[in-house]
Amino acid sequence: MQNIKIISTASYTPPQVVTNNELTTLMDTSDEWIKSRTGISQRCISQDENTSGLAFKVAKQLLQKALVSADKVDLIIIATMSPDAYTPSTAAIVQGLLGAGNAIAFDISAACTGFVYAYNIAELMLRSSEMRTAMIIGAEVLSKLIDWHDRNTAVLFGDGAGGVLLQKSEDKTSGTLGQHWQTFGQLSNKIIAGQTNIAPGFPKDKTSLTTFSMAGRDVYRFATHEVPNSIKQAMKTAHVNLNVIDHFLLHQANVRIIRQIAKELNQPLTKFPINIDKYGNTAAASEPILLAECVNAGVVKRGEIIALSGFGGGLSVSTIILKY
Amino acid sequence: MQNIKIISTASYTPPQVVTNNELTTLMDTSDEWIKSRTGISQRCISQDENTSGLAFKVAKQLLQKALVSADKVDLIIIATMSPDAYTPSTAAIVQGLLGAGNAIAFDISAACTGFVYAYNIAELMLRSSEMRTAMIIGAEVLSKLIDWHDRNTAVLFGDGAGGVLLQKSEDKTSGTLGQHWQTFGQLSNKIIAGQTNIAPGFPKDKTSLTTFSMAGRDVYRFATHEVPNSIKQAMKTAHVNLNVIDHFLLHQANVRIIRQIAKELNQPLTKFPINIDKYGNTAAASEPILLAECVNAGVVKRGEIIALSGFGGGLSVSTIILKY
Repeated sequence: MQNIKIISTASYTPPQVVTNNELTTLMDTSDEWIKSRTGISQRCISQDENTSGLAFKVAKQLLQKALVSADKVDLIIIATMSPDAYTPSTAAIVQGLLGAGNAIAFDISAACTGFVYAYNIAELMLRSSEMRTAMIIGAEVLSKLIDWHDRNTAVLFGDGAGGVLLQKSEDKTSGTLGQHWQTFGQLSNKIIAGQTNIAPGFPKDKTSLTTFSMAGRDVYRFATHEVPNSIKQAMKTAHVNLNVIDHFLLHQANVRIIRQIAKELNQPLTKFPINIDKYGNTAAASEPILLAECVNAGVVKRGEIIALSGFGGGLSVSTIILKY
Repeated sequence: MQNIKIISTASYTPPQVVTNNELTTLMDTSDEWIKSRTGISQRCISQDENTSGLAFKVAKQLLQKALVSADKVDLIIIATMSPDAYTPSTAAIVQGLLGAGNAIAFDISAACTGFVYAYNIAELMLRSSEMRTAMIIGAEVLSKLIDWHDRNTAVLFGDGAGGVLLQKSEDKTSGTLGQHWQTFGQLSNKIIAGQTNIAPGFPKDKTSLTTFSMAGRDVYRFATHEVPNSIKQAMKTAHVNLNVIDHFLLHQANVRIIRQIAKELNQPLTKFPINIDKYGNTAAASEPILLAECVNAGVVKRGEIIALSGFGGGLSVSTIILKY
């Protein structure tokens, strides 16, 4: 099987930080309530950059770090649930800004699992084509979709972007070992955001988007059951067992979910890096931001084995086991 | 190379028809003006079904026609620029409604080229995995994005859905012969719809979506230049010449564009089936609706060679040459 490795990682979060205390001026909540229930202390909120702006900053870093020129990129997939527009795709905008004229560009919609889905899709596409280099970015300006008076959801989300550059490589010391993915469409109403409504009659009114709505307990049950299952399924395809996995990089939705998954897997919490305290839930951006920060900080090192798991809207789940 | 063939085609358009004459009550236009400039006589407008509703009707037909049960579907990709929501994806909703629990489901955003992009993506994914059967649907409720007082854009678009079921097959009398795709991100501002705006400050207002805006002449120039180029590039990879192509199934954006492309290719207009008169521009749904209608009517027959070309927002273009 053609080996595909990560040749660079990068992340960007907008400069404006909104603390839990600032949210107390808008809704009946407290720093202690938010922290204890979610693990979140603050989140970044974009002031003037839309999703493509955050993604473009990540894209430039990815090329610079890997010393790859824009014209060598064959594929750009942006996973987002808060695109700039229905058209153009956020990926097409970034392709244009980068000057990556040889890259096929499109967005995928698979919510918080989007980055891991996009990683899987890119791998399959590289393997069966002459394409060699793929840029995979998760980017979100979720603050566009938040009802700032709904304390159940407004406290959870933040803006940011992260990504990886993937390349075919003969160097087998680094690459994907196995994967698992699954979609649970019968649970599609458990997390809804940015919904458009069909008003009967003609002509129709201008469309506005709904804010977040979430069946929190159902999502908690789903994640704590299906993420361990997905990790185990992916491990089977990778022919590895739990103890060889150095780091579990999970979607940062809620620190309680992460703790429960560690417990289900009977693995020490020290193997589960966490940055939700700084960024909240950044949906498709959450895992590549965490990966880039872990690589930057030397927490994840070349040759180590990591499990990258996404889960969320769809509902959906996916895990990739890779040697970084 | 693994052969992949179309095992069924299907389409669905909502029952309510809005004629050009009806539009004259909303804006300064006329049936003659619209017909002569676009080829459009009427369009279908969804009254109470969102994008997933149209797609689900196509999905059920695709399975029935091919005698494939829902649990045999490995992959569902919905190409749309008017999804039900940012999450869940329209594909996840359809997966749930179908009971296709073994299918990975996600949406892609590549506007009017979305169906052909999705077809390419699905082929690459099937070729490098154990997945065997893929459902590819283009589905749009563009009426959500129309400013019904803008006569430059409101007259152009309609609602509908179409799709194909693809399957790995040893039967080489039917399958893909070649393809081409390209993204022109530097032209991303030439067609914009459903744009979200970033208002500075915090908290932000609820997000509404912009209606269509289009640089009509630039898009005309793009399409009449890049579609012939894409068809020629795809023919090279397919090792066929223009004269063996029985039918050119082009995205139905404007009858003038189709006529000009026929002229550029020096091919008779009779090889270019047209249904824009009935449906207007249905974006990602346009080509699979046309394909399904041509197959139903016996215009496209098994063993014939067709060129399937999409073009539009991104900007983007793609052609697949296949033996039906």
